[in-house]
Amino acid sequence: MPEDGECAAACGSPVAANISRVNGRTKRDRSLETTSKTERKRRTCDPSERLSCHKTQDSLLSSASGYNKYRGILNWCVVMLVLSNARLFLENLLKHGILVDPIQVVSLFLNDPYRWPAACLVIVANVFVLVALYTERQLSKGSFSERLGFLVHAINMGVLITFPAAVVLLLPSVTPVGGASALSIYTILFLKLYSYKDVNLWCRELSSIKVKKLSRSLSCESQTQAHVSYPGNLTIRDMYYFVFAPTLCYELNFPRSPSVRVGFLLRRLCEMLFFTQVLVALAQQWMVPIIRSSMKPLEVPNHLLWLMFFYWFFHSSMNFTAELLRFGDRQFYNDWWNSETVTYFWQNWNIPVHKWCLRHFYKPLLRRGFSKKVSQSAVFFLSAFFHEYLVSVPLRMFRLWAFMGMMAQIPLAWFVGRFLRGNYGNAAVWISIIIGQPFAVLMYVHDYYVLHHRQEVDGL
Amino acid sequence: MPEDGECAAACGSPVAANISRVNGRTKRDRSLETTSKTERKRRTCDPSERLSCHKTQDSLLSSASGYNKYRGILNWCVVMLVLSNARLFLENLLKHGILVDPIQVVSLFLNDPYRWPAACLVIVANVFVLVALYTERQLSKGSFSERLGFLVHAINMGVLITFPAAVVLLLPSVTPVGGASALSIYTILFLKLYSYKDVNLWCRELSSIKVKKLSRSLSCESQTQAHVSYPGNLTIRDMYYFVFAPTLCYELNFPRSPSVRVGFLLRRLCEMLFFTQVLVALAQQWMVPIIRSSMKPLEVPNHLLWLMFFYWFFHSSMNFTAELLRFGDRQFYNDWWNSETVTYFWQNWNIPVHKWCLRHFYKPLLRRGFSKKVSQSAVFFLSAFFHEYLVSVPLRMFRLWAFMGMMAQIPLAWFVGRFLRGNYGNAAVWISIIIGQPFAVLMYVHDYYVLHHRQEVDGL
Repeated sequence: MPEDGECAAACGSPVAANISRVNGRTKRDRSLETTSKTERKRRTCDPSERLSCHKTQDSLLSSASGYNKYRGILNWCVVMLVLSNARLFLENLLKHGILVDPIQVVSLFLNDPYRWPAACLVIVANVFVLVALYTERQLSKGSFSERLGFLVHAINMGVLITFPAAVVLLLPSVTPVGGASALSIYTILFLKLYSYKDVNLWCRELSSIKVKKLSRSLSCESQTQAHVSYPGNLTIRDMYYFVFAPTLCYELNFPRSPSVRVGFLLRRLCEMLFFTQVLVALAQQWMVPIIRSSMKPLEVPNHLLWLMFFYWFFHSSMNFTAELLRFGDRQFYNDWWNSETVTYFWQNWNIPVHKWCLRHFYKPLLRRGFSKKVSQSAVFFLSAFFHEYLVSVPLRMFRLWAFMGMMAQIPLAWFVGRFLRGNYGNAAVWISIIIGQPFAVLMYVHDYYVLHHRQEVDGL
Repeated sequence: MPEDGECAAACGSPVAANISRVNGRTKRDRSLETTSKTERKRRTCDPSERLSCHKTQDSLLSSASGYNKYRGILNWCVVMLVLSNARLFLENLLKHGILVDPIQVVSLFLNDPYRWPAACLVIVANVFVLVALYTERQLSKGSFSERLGFLVHAINMGVLITFPAAVVLLLPSVTPVGGASALSIYTILFLKLYSYKDVNLWCRELSSIKVKKLSRSLSCESQTQAHVSYPGNLTIRDMYYFVFAPTLCYELNFPRSPSVRVGFLLRRLCEMLFFTQVLVALAQQWMVPIIRSSMKPLEVPNHLLWLMFFYWFFHSSMNFTAELLRFGDRQFYNDWWNSETVTYFWQNWNIPVHKWCLRHFYKPLLRRGFSKKVSQSAVFFLSAFFHEYLVSVPLRMFRLWAFMGMMAQIPLAWFVGRFLRGNYGNAAVWISIIIGQPFAVLMYVHDYYVLHHRQEVDGL
């Protein structure tokens, strides 16, 4: 809105100065005196201000401008996504109705509606939680030696990771989707219980240090909020709060939000329901026909599904759970969309896993004297193992595509970090996400279809 | 990257404090003392820091976080655009070759390759430039009275706006695209000459004030840079610099960049060539078949073409021209993508026109005592007139769709400003751009095809 519109004609100006009516030709007067600040100020409400309306400045989209506020572009993506899929939705509704979808989804999890092997697996998971809690209680009381405690934990977690894999591999009634869901839950639980064991061990270590120097510890004791201290945390309630909390890192005193905001909860719930519907509809309408008919590259659809899954899981669902549990730390992801190196992407897109890796794997390795390079590669190796575990076992195919995809990140990270900067690095990261990840998925899908539908393929 | 990984075990911690080995149940100790800052600092290199790794914070995508850095999303859009159109390009190349496109483009401008009416029109435009310069020179010398000068300018600009329209309407050899281009150039020239006339008038006004108080003006005269003062600017060179400069607002001393950066120039040139190719290819491959076959709504393609046109014109081309002319003020657009109100969008997407409207239309209206509401509506009315002028005349159809589209912005601006805030307002602006603008275009395209291809339509 204009500000100086009404200001009346007043003092002279540099533009009007040095007039020579006779001399109509170019005449540049090079006066080199500098204008004082008060002089400049006085001129702001000057009609001669009208005469200059330009100043030297860069365009916002030039990289030199350093401008990076693009919230609106995100809204544009959402609007475009909704608008360009609105017709697809309507057609889907008119063709299949709304009832078809949920049943098809259920059939992905269950072959036989009277046997729910994946659900049973999840229920059985409670046993491992209780064993871990029992072991920690015995350790805190001194009934178990540290050695015995470690052994029990090792066996418990060893079984935790092998037992569901064996069930999925051996029971034919487990579908790939059901199996992958159950194994994901077991993997999450594995990481959580590992953290639980570590933190309780650290507490015991610290208490033994504390006994040696009681005087100093008193100064540290002060806390503004009510908090739980070491063996007081070993309760069923505390354990299950951690199991359901949207984090993989155990802590005795999680930061808590003051109350459950119902509006926030409902917004996230609506998003969850909406995106579930979108993900299912898109998968059915878009991807299944492509795979069935022509095995075309599905980079773009797959990528959009992944983006929606990201928002659905890391924003809507995790914030929903956090709000419900009054869990204060909502940093479930960082600004990975701006990542200019592959390393930055992996450190920021999945903060719970990144935090766990840093706290319970990377830093312990560093403390044991390994170099940063080796420790970082070890983290990628661990991640590669779990990616393979979560894909190969449910599909009952060991092809190592996921494993190699993760391990390929190490040379890729080196290449991008070495040769690309700024927006080019960012574009390279995006391309690796858009092309690379669906490529690995496609390899599995291809092999799975060749393996299970060879007759159909040959028949055509 | 981890920082406290190697730090050795040291002092006690609040977590380890208050241990009671017997009491294994929940025991929350509510110590209310506050920790001193030095105390907190000491604890940062503490092994007990491992025990807490969460802090209360919002997710970045929550509106409460206030986070708005999404440069990466813009890169994502570019990568997606390139990837999703890469195949289209390849197919286009394989099918039509690269030679087909330019000829088809030329045929849009020319019906008869031996007669270039639009190009001739543009050459004739120089006459109006020279008349304006001549008039100003006579005015500066006092040979023309202010009254006569005003009359000459009025006639010059009246002819400037009506003559090309008459040519386009009467000469059948002018194609719609050629006519629209010629009229755009004439419109730009009209706005430039209007500004030229205004600024030179203001200079004469100021100099007459200055004569009255010579003493004060001397203090204003000082400038650090070499600059031109009033009648010295009335040269062919200065005039043509203004005609080609990427601005509509005349100024005696434009801010200039120190040198022409060849790298910058080449990058912009590559963008210009690339986007020209993309725009033409998309229009041929995507829009023409849609219009020919089914008259489906073309919201999304049209919108993407508009976005690409925006970048091509307002970033690549204008920066290219500015770099070539060492024109310093590169603010050709502002952050309209974040606009939360319709008014903000119109004020920021086309800065040269906005600046002109503010300086030569809105503020003069305010100075004449009109209210802000009335002046704002008058600006929309003027804009609506030129939109209609640039569409109706080349198409030789007076339907007022563009006019009504612009005038509809007034109630729309009121509605969005009144009822929608923040991201919802931004989404509303995006929807109005994505739906509204192509809708108006579609109306013209529809009417044009019905008018010119009725036989074909009836024949089917």
